[in-house]
Amino acid sequence: MDKSSLLSLCLCFLVIFHCCVAQIEQVTSYDGDHHRQRLNRAQQDQCRLDNLNAAEPSRSFQSEAGVTEVWDENDEQFQCTGVVAIRHIIQQRGLLLPQYANGPKLIYVVQGNGVQGALIPGCPETYQSPSESEYRERRQSQGDQHQKVRQLREGDVVALPAGVAQWIYNNGRSPLVLVQIIDTSNPANQLDQSHRLFFLAGNPHRKVQSQRGESERRHEWSRGESLRSHQRSGNVFSGLDEQLLAEAFNVNRDIARRLKGENDNRGIIVSVEGELEYFSPRRNQEEEKRERQFVNGIEETFCTARLKHNINDPSRADIYNPRGGHVTNVNSHNFPILRHLRLSVQKGVLFRNAIFAPHWNINAHSIYYFTRGNGHVQIVDENGDAVFDGQVQQGQILTAPQNFVVLKRASNEGLEWVSFKTNENAQISPLAGRTSAIRALPEAVVANAFQISREDARRLKENRQEVTVFSPGSRSRN
Amino acid sequence: MDKSSLLSLCLCFLVIFHCCVAQIEQVTSYDGDHHRQRLNRAQQDQCRLDNLNAAEPSRSFQSEAGVTEVWDENDEQFQCTGVVAIRHIIQQRGLLLPQYANGPKLIYVVQGNGVQGALIPGCPETYQSPSESEYRERRQSQGDQHQKVRQLREGDVVALPAGVAQWIYNNGRSPLVLVQIIDTSNPANQLDQSHRLFFLAGNPHRKVQSQRGESERRHEWSRGESLRSHQRSGNVFSGLDEQLLAEAFNVNRDIARRLKGENDNRGIIVSVEGELEYFSPRRNQEEEKRERQFVNGIEETFCTARLKHNINDPSRADIYNPRGGHVTNVNSHNFPILRHLRLSVQKGVLFRNAIFAPHWNINAHSIYYFTRGNGHVQIVDENGDAVFDGQVQQGQILTAPQNFVVLKRASNEGLEWVSFKTNENAQISPLAGRTSAIRALPEAVVANAFQISREDARRLKENRQEVTVFSPGSRSRN
Amino acid sequence: MDKSSLLSLCLCFLVIFHCCVAQIEQVTSYDGDHHRQRLNRAQQDQCRLDNLNAAEPSRSFQSEAGVTEVWDENDEQFQCTGVVAIRHIIQQRGLLLPQYANGPKLIYVVQGNGVQGALIPGCPETYQSPSESEYRERRQSQGDQHQKVRQLREGDVVALPAGVAQWIYNNGRSPLVLVQIIDTSNPANQLDQSHRLFFLAGNPHRKVQSQRGESERRHEWSRGESLRSHQRSGNVFSGLDEQLLAEAFNVNRDIARRLKGENDNRGIIVSVEGELEYFSPRRNQEEEKRERQFVNGIEETFCTARLKHNINDPSRADIYNPRGGHVTNVNSHNFPILRHLRLSVQKGVLFRNAIFAPHWNINAHSIYYFTRGNGHVQIVDENGDAVFDGQVQQGQILTAPQNFVVLKRASNEGLEWVSFKTNENAQISPLAGRTSAIRALPEAVVANAFQISREDARRLKENRQEVTVFSPGSRSRN
Repeated sequence: MDKSSLLSLCLCFLVIFHCCVAQIEQVTSYDGDHHRQRLNRAQQDQCRLDNLNAAEPSRSFQSEAGVTEVWDENDEQFQCTGVVAIRHIIQQRGLLLPQYANGPKLIYVVQGNGVQGALIPGCPETYQSPSESEYRERRQSQGDQHQKVRQLREGDVVALPAGVAQWIYNNGRSPLVLVQIIDTSNPANQLDQSHRLFFLAGNPHRKVQSQRGESERRHEWSRGESLRSHQRSGNVFSGLDEQLLAEAFNVNRDIARRLKGENDNRGIIVSVEGELEYFSPRRNQEEEKRERQFVNGIEETFCTARLKHNINDPSRADIYNPRGGHVTNVNSHNFPILRHLRLSVQKGVLFRNAIFAPHWNINAHSIYYFTRGNGHVQIVDENGDAVFDGQVQQGQILTAPQNFVVLKRASNEGLEWVSFKTNENAQISPLAGRTSAIRALPEAVVANAFQISREDARRLKENRQEVTVFSPGSRSRN
Repeated sequence: MDKSSLLSLCLCFLVIFHCCVAQIEQVTSYDGDHHRQRLNRAQQDQCRLDNLNAAEPSRSFQSEAGVTEVWDENDEQFQCTGVVAIRHIIQQRGLLLPQYANGPKLIYVVQGNGVQGALIPGCPETYQSPSESEYRERRQSQGDQHQKVRQLREGDVVALPAGVAQWIYNNGRSPLVLVQIIDTSNPANQLDQSHRLFFLAGNPHRKVQSQRGESERRHEWSRGESLRSHQRSGNVFSGLDEQLLAEAFNVNRDIARRLKGENDNRGIIVSVEGELEYFSPRRNQEEEKRERQFVNGIEETFCTARLKHNINDPSRADIYNPRGGHVTNVNSHNFPILRHLRLSVQKGVLFRNAIFAPHWNINAHSIYYFTRGNGHVQIVDENGDAVFDGQVQQGQILTAPQNFVVLKRASNEGLEWVSFKTNENAQISPLAGRTSAIRALPEAVVANAFQISREDARRLKENRQEVTVFSPGSRSRN
Repeated sequence: MDKSSLLSLCLCFLVIFHCCVAQIEQVTSYDGDHHRQRLNRAQQDQCRLDNLNAAEPSRSFQSEAGVTEVWDENDEQFQCTGVVAIRHIIQQRGLLLPQYANGPKLIYVVQGNGVQGALIPGCPETYQSPSESEYRERRQSQGDQHQKVRQLREGDVVALPAGVAQWIYNNGRSPLVLVQIIDTSNPANQLDQSHRLFFLAGNPHRKVQSQRGESERRHEWSRGESLRSHQRSGNVFSGLDEQLLAEAFNVNRDIARRLKGENDNRGIIVSVEGELEYFSPRRNQEEEKRERQFVNGIEETFCTARLKHNINDPSRADIYNPRGGHVTNVNSHNFPILRHLRLSVQKGVLFRNAIFAPHWNINAHSIYYFTRGNGHVQIVDENGDAVFDGQVQQGQILTAPQNFVVLKRASNEGLEWVSFKTNENAQISPLAGRTSAIRALPEAVVANAFQISREDARRLKENRQEVTVFSPGSRSRN
């Protein structure tokens, strides 16, 4: 063995060692700030879930370049799961102002194209203007640098940790429609269950904030405070002293005053004159490849973490049944940031009259947003009572609480959904089909449990060989 | 160095590397779905624990082949610890119907023999009939396959994650007595603190469900609803549409109807005609050896995880005092699934008049079920008040809240217990004996703290050299 | 390659392997007992944080050799963050009696010198008297052994897990002033949010215990119970039977009776006659070096874990601005026990008129204790309202809730603080300066968001190049 092989051996050693340590650090650092758990999903002593509704947004408000719709936080399905749902419709050239929330966010791009920028503290401004080099030499150039900008398209899921600010801009030719949940009962939120949106700019309408226990608050308003004062909430600079702001930014008081957005009536989605300028690499695919490397490799930190993942491609489905439909799961294994957020996502597509196996969610609530079509859903509680039995359709939200049994059947038009799940590795236990609980039972247990013959027990175990997504059976028309 | 040694070196490398990575993945995946914490043990602002009782079950109900007894959830010791206690007495050839709960379970086999099957989604049906090969060829055989079946015997602890269903069958010659706790304040439960039992079959009595805040509910019943409607709760199929069920299972409506168990009055433990057939390997010891390999190795997943552990063997005790008794602890180190459940178990045996050192639980509540004998227990709170001072005996439950000081002394008959602890690595801090807090203090601190002489301080530190389990002293008769 | 290099290679292997495994075990064991989360920080449905105060302690009581001061648990900033703040002033030769609490503690040494001993169960008594060898032979010597004793000095942070007892002794020449928080909403606490102090000795004043919801309790007192009975709370031995104690410790009943401290009126800080004797290695620096090795190495367990860390040395600052001040962060990376406690600490020093960048805490509450000087602080909520806008000064506590925006400016005298943070890796997101959120935005977004020119947008991004700690600007006198 010569010196060079010895050297290479040693190098090899070092690589292994570092890799090892790095991965451990990764585990450690990921664990770092999300061990903590503050709020319990079900704050009330008795969380009644005996009458669920397929819900539309309960309030909405107009901004200069878009509309924001909020589902009712006092609806039991949101109160018990500790999740808030919001839909933004951003017009062309509309900019959703930079804001952060007191819980992690999952955003699903229902329609359209856009760009998103997250403001992650401690990460470098890695996107630089082409004229950056001159800029550095302090010439009068248009040079600028900022943090990474991500392209958004239909089917993208964007994941954002609690307290991290972002902006979104519609650079497409049609409205950009985003459905998002904020998980306020997440351990990352140490405040109460009200969602709180902190805007870095603008002068947002107060309706964007939580209205939990609103009836009581309204009561207080009537006692003295004018309703008007509640219509506008300010941004985070509003409450700071102008002079202190001027000092902190080392700018004059006029600019400092503009930070507070006092007379800004544009709402939270504003129109941009012309095109919004930002820097974005053209070699987007290379970029993604590199990101993928990071994910599999050792350099995964928040700065380089992938924050988006597309779940619309049927060719990447986890379950595919050409006669039934397909299901794609996004969890901490294929979208590592979700480990930090403790959330995951499922995209489901049922073709006409197809059935999604009756099942229960083992370790998560499942918040369905129906993206297309319609169908029939039944949800059953521990007493065997149906807490939901009805039609659902595009644009509605329906929650399947943890452990409740769910059965979905598409109409003639099919049914599609994105489901937000309150566990980074949400798992279901199907009751029918090849991977079902019934099939895991010995035939004799099935026969004795249901008081049926061994032959019928075998039929229950064997007649449906598909996995989770079932094609419409011939019996469906009996 | 020749090529073969180089090769073996490299192989060695690979092993280290993979082992390393695998272990990390294990940590990661275990962490996966149980980071989340939803419910707080002590939901009330003030959790009064000033008057504890050694409690017997408060309600019971009869099934065809057994009795189920439930401790009162509204008893403060259960309310504050967020734990529910249930005892099943299963007659010979009795089958506890498959069910799952909204929290992890620990089951202790007090008496008898049985078999248990857990229905873990995504795991293969690894137990096959001997005629399996023919079966595969679709001949008319009695072939069947199902998930693993475990033999149960006295002293076994069975651990079951939240939302995972199981059935249990008494294949012995005497009643099978099981005491179990369900930890509803576990992070794995995202619903409220009420325990919810979801039955896959049968038509269970409603008494099996939680009766937290029952007084209020009863109030509602009186307003209109008939009491009768509350006597039976259904199984998870009850609320689903018969036609949809028939489609989902691809069976006829008659079979689908049987799933709902509508006229089933057998309760939750049913009689099996003849013997229940299932497949079980005879080479049980090899099986266990293999399981142990998995535990130490890299293939630990839920599918292969050990779900039972016997704690009755004195030769495996952690502390053994031939004049005092012995203690066996089962925690995440020797029963890895407990890491996921965040629970652990202690079996304690005190011989006649022996003493268990005064101590406090550092990081867990300790829920004692006394399995034999009787004795005297004292529990003291932060104000120095005794919140319990009395006799305990076989069949009772008593909780030692976290940090409260506990002292146990066996009667002439001795005292045995199994203690369920709300931490996967519950630790105690003894106040007397060789590992005690008093012994960790400098003599001068002891003398000054208790205003005693250095000699007496030394006596406090040194006179009891045993560890935790103390033989009855000569002074005990002074 | 000769045999010796092969040998060294193999050794190298083993080291890597063990190191790797050990680190994983460390991760695992650290995770062990603090996964669990019991209490939610914000127990109330609506945690109003609309009017914060810079608070002084609300009650105090005198002991023989010191004073203890407690901040009001019912003050919203403490109620919402689930943290209790206590200050001990220990006179020379005063001994704070051994006690433990139901939550992890962080103690900051504001002034003075002392020694501390933690009583960690299962760890050996590693500090032995010089005459230990004779002692072992049971001669009449002054031999003694006890657990490790730590020297305390100004600027030390002591970290103590929930349920672990400690004693502290002032061996200096001036009062020893300690400010501590107990995190009762930490997962390690499975009781309710009231802090509970369990004393191993003495007869402490009841005022030391929690007075959460005190008004209600007081109401109860008036109904029958005499107030007197509430003035003294006992120690953990008070409620135990004298005879049982005598048996357990194998001492006579006179000594057992002294454990209960019945007629002890010295309070919780007692005077020591002469000097308190204990053993302490003189080679303290070697000791620390060895500790550091442990931290980086493989033997880190609770027994060898470092429990103190000094944060007063400016030369170890994370941010240093000669014209502005400096900031030192202590988190799980440089003080590993904090990973277990899920808390971290910041020491901040602002020179005269300097500014701490407006910022928000991403993942933690920040509880400031001001150690010197005074200044102006503004805190802004999600509606842009200032919930605090006022002067703060030495000895006060002020909380910045998670996500709220904070701006601090020192007076002419400068401002110093120690900040306790409810996350083991608390992170801030500055709004101004080189690492700010504003700088991470594309210039065009800044311009459009604030309706300002591109030039002004660039000024906002570029005019303040310092990081977080800003020197007083020339504009500060405009």
